[in-house]
Amino acid sequence: MPKALQPHPDRALPAGEAREVARRIHDSTRGLPLLCFHGHVDVALFATDEAFGNPADLLVVPDHYVTRMLISQGVPADRLGLPRLDGTGTAEPREIWREFCSRWHLFLGTPSRYWLEHEFAEVLGLTVAPSAETADVLYDEICARLAEPEFRPRALLDRFGIEVISTTDAATDDLAQHAKLAADLPGRVIPTFRPDALVHLARSGWSDLTRRLGELAGTDTSAYDGYLEGLRLRRQAFVAAGARATDHGHLSAAAVPLDDATARRIYDTALRGEVTAADAEIFAGHMLFQMAAMSADDGLVMQLHPGVLRDHDPAIHATYGPDQGHDIPVAAEFTRSLRPVLERFGHAEGFRMVLFTVDETVYSRELAPLAGVYPSVRLGAPWWFLDSPDGMRRFRELVTETAGFYNTSGFVDDTRAFLSIPARHDLARRIDAGYLAKLVVEHRLDEDDAFRVAKDLAYNLAADTYARRP
Amino acid sequence: MPKALQPHPDRALPAGEAREVARRIHDSTRGLPLLCFHGHVDVALFATDEAFGNPADLLVVPDHYVTRMLISQGVPADRLGLPRLDGTGTAEPREIWREFCSRWHLFLGTPSRYWLEHEFAEVLGLTVAPSAETADVLYDEICARLAEPEFRPRALLDRFGIEVISTTDAATDDLAQHAKLAADLPGRVIPTFRPDALVHLARSGWSDLTRRLGELAGTDTSAYDGYLEGLRLRRQAFVAAGARATDHGHLSAAAVPLDDATARRIYDTALRGEVTAADAEIFAGHMLFQMAAMSADDGLVMQLHPGVLRDHDPAIHATYGPDQGHDIPVAAEFTRSLRPVLERFGHAEGFRMVLFTVDETVYSRELAPLAGVYPSVRLGAPWWFLDSPDGMRRFRELVTETAGFYNTSGFVDDTRAFLSIPARHDLARRIDAGYLAKLVVEHRLDEDDAFRVAKDLAYNLAADTYARRP
Amino acid sequence: MPKALQPHPDRALPAGEAREVARRIHDSTRGLPLLCFHGHVDVALFATDEAFGNPADLLVVPDHYVTRMLISQGVPADRLGLPRLDGTGTAEPREIWREFCSRWHLFLGTPSRYWLEHEFAEVLGLTVAPSAETADVLYDEICARLAEPEFRPRALLDRFGIEVISTTDAATDDLAQHAKLAADLPGRVIPTFRPDALVHLARSGWSDLTRRLGELAGTDTSAYDGYLEGLRLRRQAFVAAGARATDHGHLSAAAVPLDDATARRIYDTALRGEVTAADAEIFAGHMLFQMAAMSADDGLVMQLHPGVLRDHDPAIHATYGPDQGHDIPVAAEFTRSLRPVLERFGHAEGFRMVLFTVDETVYSRELAPLAGVYPSVRLGAPWWFLDSPDGMRRFRELVTETAGFYNTSGFVDDTRAFLSIPARHDLARRIDAGYLAKLVVEHRLDEDDAFRVAKDLAYNLAADTYARRP
Repeated sequence: MPKALQPHPDRALPAGEAREVARRIHDSTRGLPLLCFHGHVDVALFATDEAFGNPADLLVVPDHYVTRMLISQGVPADRLGLPRLDGTGTAEPREIWREFCSRWHLFLGTPSRYWLEHEFAEVLGLTVAPSAETADVLYDEICARLAEPEFRPRALLDRFGIEVISTTDAATDDLAQHAKLAADLPGRVIPTFRPDALVHLARSGWSDLTRRLGELAGTDTSAYDGYLEGLRLRRQAFVAAGARATDHGHLSAAAVPLDDATARRIYDTALRGEVTAADAEIFAGHMLFQMAAMSADDGLVMQLHPGVLRDHDPAIHATYGPDQGHDIPVAAEFTRSLRPVLERFGHAEGFRMVLFTVDETVYSRELAPLAGVYPSVRLGAPWWFLDSPDGMRRFRELVTETAGFYNTSGFVDDTRAFLSIPARHDLARRIDAGYLAKLVVEHRLDEDDAFRVAKDLAYNLAADTYARRP
Repeated sequence: MPKALQPHPDRALPAGEAREVARRIHDSTRGLPLLCFHGHVDVALFATDEAFGNPADLLVVPDHYVTRMLISQGVPADRLGLPRLDGTGTAEPREIWREFCSRWHLFLGTPSRYWLEHEFAEVLGLTVAPSAETADVLYDEICARLAEPEFRPRALLDRFGIEVISTTDAATDDLAQHAKLAADLPGRVIPTFRPDALVHLARSGWSDLTRRLGELAGTDTSAYDGYLEGLRLRRQAFVAAGARATDHGHLSAAAVPLDDATARRIYDTALRGEVTAADAEIFAGHMLFQMAAMSADDGLVMQLHPGVLRDHDPAIHATYGPDQGHDIPVAAEFTRSLRPVLERFGHAEGFRMVLFTVDETVYSRELAPLAGVYPSVRLGAPWWFLDSPDGMRRFRELVTETAGFYNTSGFVDDTRAFLSIPARHDLARRIDAGYLAKLVVEHRLDEDDAFRVAKDLAYNLAADTYARRP
Repeated sequence: MPKALQPHPDRALPAGEAREVARRIHDSTRGLPLLCFHGHVDVALFATDEAFGNPADLLVVPDHYVTRMLISQGVPADRLGLPRLDGTGTAEPREIWREFCSRWHLFLGTPSRYWLEHEFAEVLGLTVAPSAETADVLYDEICARLAEPEFRPRALLDRFGIEVISTTDAATDDLAQHAKLAADLPGRVIPTFRPDALVHLARSGWSDLTRRLGELAGTDTSAYDGYLEGLRLRRQAFVAAGARATDHGHLSAAAVPLDDATARRIYDTALRGEVTAADAEIFAGHMLFQMAAMSADDGLVMQLHPGVLRDHDPAIHATYGPDQGHDIPVAAEFTRSLRPVLERFGHAEGFRMVLFTVDETVYSRELAPLAGVYPSVRLGAPWWFLDSPDGMRRFRELVTETAGFYNTSGFVDDTRAFLSIPARHDLARRIDAGYLAKLVVEHRLDEDDAFRVAKDLAYNLAADTYARRP
């Protein structure tokens, strides 16, 4: 007999005498809308509002958390349908789904299992757990659901209670789909300015993108000054389109300005295709500083995610392209790296910086001390590998005593898996409820204060962190 | 109706079946006197024994934990009365107090809130919590208390049960106030030798201090040999005044001796005002080694606090001076850094070194392994940002399994906030009681052993660690 | 009256509502055989099957965990009988035993105390705890036990339920004792290939060992190519003798291949006794890569233990030799260091790498992300200082959410203390049971899944990880 799928009402809440308190706290946040100011869902989803395809394309293929675990246990990427750059090799969606279902036990103890159970039971209404035996039945059942109108993306926006969701958009995106959405769903789906591809001079395709920047912004990007001005103008276009934030993924958090002459020189060598790796790196750090300066001007909240070595396995990158879950963290450093930005803008009223990390060692050593003194700094929610029950608990335990609750950003979900959004917010609220409940039963916090804080963490702090700067 | 201020009798003790055990363990340590061998309270407090001023000057302005949190949430330093170096800008104490009271929620979950609640309720006898509404009433009530004779510093020494308290004194301090105290309160208030300003050649004021060292010690500090001899003689003066320890705050823990010729050369360039940053750094490391050598001779316990980048924001430093809470930790390293000291003195009978960190990554990786094999090394209590409920719990969890309990220093409070001393010791005893109780209920330790260890952690180990060396 | 020695049946299980669940889970793993694929017990023990000597020689002198703690509290190494290289200085075993027993409290809260209590009570049948008063009685009682035939090593192999145990053997070992054991106890005691002494060119004795390698393998080690071929042939001899794995202790995890010309040049300078420290280091990294390449060929599982600075105190090393517990961890790095190996062999079917660390910061930052995507990587059990109740709990909490359970190696004991093996496996099973029970009572895992995982962690995963590669 197949195993039933029954997410427990008390899941991820603490056991013992804290449970009752945690339940009450969690209940008090259930009805709050979701603010998704750091999303990666494809804007086309909402612009076209087409029905989702099949379970494999919706839940397996695009979810790195899922594919990396299956790959780590020996399932070849091709059998999971990862699209090859050369167009060869496809896998049948039903076969992909079977690979996944028959290895459901691999996800025990991981947040993926938690999110998926939530999606299966509460979003899709499934009643049996995935397994080799149930794979086909589940496949058909999900396909049937996805064909119903209430499973269209815009309908789910309502059902999920999403008040605002950000997408992530290249600085060179023309924002046409966002223009459509601004008309259809005003203020509900907004862009985020991501200039990474334009500030990393050595990445392939950089010069084409730079030319595209010039076209879009109407500036002359054959010189550094026009490039900088182009970025400034694109940011204004994003602001006009409703953007609240920028997003920056750099290997290092170093944000050290160069003098103009040096910046111009490096830019010129890059245009000639002759930039050195070292110059490209200091230029990226220079541009991080420039982006901070522009944020202090135009009020876009600056989100920084450093410390990940992209495409650790070059063969995977060559075959399947970037962002295939083969990115591996390295040690992060913020104290010295951000000093130039913070001594310049750390107390500036218009500037807001949200810091994320996948290196937990900086929580108590660097991030909490920085956020606990600089008014411009907020600590982002646990990111990527750390967006998990124990990861979120450690975050609170490691930062609260130095930074308090009110220097954290509130929960943001950071996902491209649209169906997982309610599960992710709910899990975060449960973990925060559990953390607060523990403080309550240890008499470190009153229960009425816990209610107030829980609401702030779940909603108000994100609203405040990503509010338009003056 | 204002919220009542009622610190719970079981606060910061674990919930569940460990609570009863923790209560018993904590009770057994309540009556023990306080040993404060690593204090930063101003010696003048005890020398003059004058009444404290007002709540703002006592509890807000000088407490970095409090001011940095308020600043991080946008309260300008000037509105908090931080004294400007140029003498301009003052804030009315009652206004400062109101800023603080109206933001009491910012401290939820922080040790500051815990300490202050303890001070308010148990030291000052207040009964309502701070808020915008209660600020003025509390202000007046505290002022009235502070005017009473039993709130004078020396009376509080008795009331707090402080057996010995160390102050922190520059190597160039003439110890005049300590001489007075040695007569009035023999052995109760003792100095600690802090030579930082003399060993960092590039800091402003260094050459004046060096001259002052020569005058006090009667040596010729226009040359390195006289400087070194001057330090040795000042240490002897501190020993004669009752000092038990030295205290060293360096960016790095590196303690690498130079040959005499190099040390002399660098010293000479510093006297000429021409020392390079690199030379100043290796000289500081050289002097850390020299201080260890002198400790092995004169028996002063060597306390080391590395890993903090001072004055992260130069504008704050320029306006308000050093030590304004804008110091941010960096990654620490002890294994290689202390090797020269430990291979020379690690097994020396007269040498005792107490190591502190604000980088928790070294607890299990470096500090516990070092303290767990070198007889001269003890691990200091969790310091600064880590002197907190979860911080102290993590310390025990991360070091005990390798270093045991008996290679730790016992609790020292490391505070300049005199009124917070009982709260800090009490909190440490509660957290240790909770940690021990957890081991008891998990059958990892017998309850009678837990009682013995609790007493050792609260009193005996500090007495032993800071005992005069043979 | 002496204190009774009564290890509690629930020891190291969680308190509260998780205890009952943890008990059931632990019970379900009790009967499983022990797989000891990463042991350091001396092969001679099993080859000769002679009776153990006295309590000091069995339980104190060779156990670094024990001697380092006693040394840290001021007991001179000579009084503990650590054998001096020059043959001078011996301590009477009964005196050594008294030193240990009278300081039994130093081990409170450490895994050594846990293991020893288990050995005393469950292996040796003692009933009173060690103390100054009971030392002599215990000494005599243990001596009497050790004289009984059922305390011979091979009898204990059966009693302990050890299915397979690996020893650790130099690449230049002739495997004669293993040949004898292969006949007497087929497949039960197997060698592990440890080439460290041959790949670190600057260590004393290297050239003699290299000559010995040539003799054993029948290759010409006066040149690099013959040396490499010699290693390959010795590996084949180990495979033939039943080996499943290699073991590598390097300061850094860097595994960067050199071109042949450079490797040959460095090798030649080493033969002339002129190798530089820098060249020796890059050669060690080169050989780590070569060992990975050979593992991908011959199927030996590659175990890597980086990040320990050996012989921190040179005086201890000079007097007593290496491996005296004076090895101290340093910060570890895997992401960049292993990239050359993983981009070449990370997806190779024949390759399996087990990664160990004594730097916990890499658990969630590097190791779990690497093991969570590369099929060849498994995370080794918490090692050395981290093989402890809280250390093992942190391991699960920090890696499971990213790597799951099935990318970990299963428990291996990594000990040279034969009598402690059942205690170590039992403790690991208890901690894993407690971790799983916590997930169960927090409704993050079903109890039936917990039973399955517990069995896999205790037995099946080690069997799978160390299975012969195809």
